[in-house]
Parts: sequence; C-alpha cells; structure tokens
Amino acid sequence: MKLNDRGLLIVISGPSGVGKGTVRKALFDMPKHNLTYSVSMTTRGIRQGEENGKDYYFVSKEEFEKRISEGKFLEYAEFVGNYYGTPLDKVNEQLDSGKEVVLEIEVEGALQVKKKVPDCVMIFLVPPSKDDLYKRLRSRGTESEEIIEKRVEKANREFKKAKYYDYIVVNDDVFNAADRILAIIRAEHARTKRSIHKYYELIGEDIEE
Amino acid sequence: MKLNDRGLLIVISGPSGVGKGTVRKALFDMPKHNLTYSVSMTTRGIRQGEENGKDYYFVSKEEFEKRISEGKFLEYAEFVGNYYGTPLDKVNEQLDSGKEVVLEIEVEGALQVKKKVPDCVMIFLVPPSKDDLYKRLRSRGTESEEIIEKRVEKANREFKKAKYYDYIVVNDDVFNAADRILAIIRAEHARTKRSIHKYYELIGEDIEE
Repeated sequence: MKLNDRGLLIVISGPSGVGKGTVRKALFDMPKHNLTYSVSMTTRGIRQGEENGKDYYFVSKEEFEKRISEGKFLEYAEFVGNYYGTPLDKVNEQLDSGKEVVLEIEVEGALQVKKKVPDCVMIFLVPPSKDDLYKRLRSRGTESEEIIEKRVEKANREFKKAKYYDYIVVNDDVFNAADRILAIIRAEHARTKRSIHKYYELIGEDIEE
Repeated sequence: MKLNDRGLLIVISGPSGVGKGTVRKALFDMPKHNLTYSVSMTTRGIRQGEENGKDYYFVSKEEFEKRISEGKFLEYAEFVGNYYGTPLDKVNEQLDSGKEVVLEIEVEGALQVKKKVPDCVMIFLVPPSKDDLYKRLRSRGTESEEIIEKRVEKANREFKKAKYYDYIVVNDDVFNAADRILAIIRAEHARTKRSIHKYYELIGEDIEE
C-alpha cells in the first residue's frame, strides 16, 4: 500500500556526456515500473534512426519561440544553437494519472523545473571520474572538435551544480544507476512530506493536531 | 559505486503493536544487505525462547539506572514499569565500519535518537488501519486486559507522531514493508547531503566554490 498516489516528477540530469540517455533507457527496460517519459521538443535536425514524436518533437525555431511566448514549456534551453524544451500540458496529465514522469534534461533546464515544481525529485548523474567523462565526449565521434570543446567546457561548469539536486547517482554501471533511481522513486513515495496527508485520512486524525 | 561509505543509523519505530519486530526480522532475512542491529538493554523479565545478548541484554533496574547516569544510552524509555535502552558505544563502532545499524524502538526513544543523531533515517511503520492495529494488540494473548488497554492508549498517542519522521511505511505486508525500507536505505546513501563530500573529492572540485 502506497500512501502517495500521485506520480512523481523525476528529473534526471547531469553533466554533458554522462550518459543520461543510456541510463534513462535502462530505467525503462526494468521490470515492473510505472514510468513514463515526456518527449522533449527541439529545433535541432533529426539524426539517423530518430523518430519524430518518439525521440523528440522536431519543430522549427519559429514554432518553438511561439510556444515559449505562450508559456507552454516546463523548461527550455538553448544549446549549440538549438532549443530543447519540455511541453507542460502532457506532464501534468501524466502525473495526475499516477504515472511517474521522467525528464532526462540538461542542467540548465533541470534548475528551471525545480523552480516551477519544487516537489520534483532532482537526480544528478555523475561519471566515476572527470577523465571518464572527457573520454566519453570524445568517443562519440559524431561531432566536430569545436563542438566537443564546447561540451567539455559546459560539463566543467555543470559539475558544480550537484549541490542543487536531491540525489547524486554515479553512472559507473548503467544497470546499477537505473536500479538506484528506482529505489529513489520508491523511497520518495514514502517520504513524510508526500505521504502524511493520506496517512491522516487513513487513521482518521486531524492533520492540524 | 556509493558516494557515502559510512553506515546509516536507521530508526524503525511506530505505534505499539504495528509489527516492528516482524518487519525488522523480514528485513534481516532479505538477501544482500549490510544491515546489523543494535541489541537493546532491558529490565523486563526474559520471555520463553528469548536469549540474553541476542534478543535483549537483560539487566537489573539498578544496573540500568547506573548506566543512564553514566550517559551510556543513545536512548532509553520506561514502559509498563520496565526500562528499555540502546547502548551508545556499540552503535558508533558499527556505523564507522560501514554497517547500517537498525534500531527497532518505541516512539519515545526514537524521538530521543533524532535529537542526538539528526542525520539518522527515521521510519514510521503504520498499520493499514487503526482497527487492524487494535486487533493485533488483542490477539497477542500474552498480556492482561489492563496491559492491552494501556497499549491501545499508547498507540493512539503515538499515531500522532508520524510528522516527526522522514518516512511513513505501511505494514500491510511484511515483505513489502521490508523491501520498501531497503529502497529507502539505498536512496538515502545517494542523498546530496550525504554524498556531496565524496563527490567533490571524486571530481577534484573545491566544496566551497
């Protein structure tokens, strides 16, 4: 029996190149979860193997900026000349239906989400070492040296943002990282601040007492 | 890779009769844990099947009061004419060695522990309903009606203390409750307040920055 029925908004973030996407995929491959993710919107070009509406919603810069001005994003960020954002309406629907919504987003966006939804669960994914991260950034091999350098600089700034998160999870092993995130989700449902209202209902006590 | 190597002090408490002992036993029967528990000291008589030094340390009232005056308890309480307490020295040794120390104690004692060790993990175990608890208290069958009535009154006072705890876990199924407590322990190790020091070491950043 769970004392908190509403879904949690789980923000998975961390420095550029830490492997957020891989961990998110491993998380969704775990058995018996109730997770869903919010598909982000972007203005960057579609890559080989990607699908519109599944990997991202791919839209034009004009369309994206129109949506910004209409307040339709939970968060958005510009990165290497492109926008990335999380559509707000879908997220609330999913939370209300009891699903845990996982956002896998950049650090800048994550901090915006925390401001808008203070009771979200902020998870900062980190590499086992800085060198490990630099190696990952270089081995991706799909980007120019200039873009790699930008990512390295960005990662170095992002390392310092860990303190704004609720949890720090090391991505030394994708399965372990995903499994620890599932434990965090289970634990968060039991946290007193989330469960005490239903608890008072259950035992018929007045919460004001 | 865990970013917090010190053991956690896990306080499992809850209203009288909720099944703290059963959940604690189920927890220790789980595979792959690193849990240990602190054996309490008491002045109550030894019951059939109990073992000195395993279930409790059974001591005289004089001995117990001497230890109180020497500050040798992490917490202690008097209940139905007897003392119950947790010896301090053993607990610290175990935490330093990286073990998670589980205290299964009365509410009064739990609140004392929180004052002395603010970074302990406070878990409040609750029944699926108040009636369920009253039934359990009556079905124990080893105590007089007078003692049962005292326990019911005590439980009713204790129900209101949930707000002082970090987590509320429903004991509707012993295995589920134990499994949720394990998730809480895993999650707590990843909490930023516990893991950020080692994280800064790992990435070679100055924590003051």
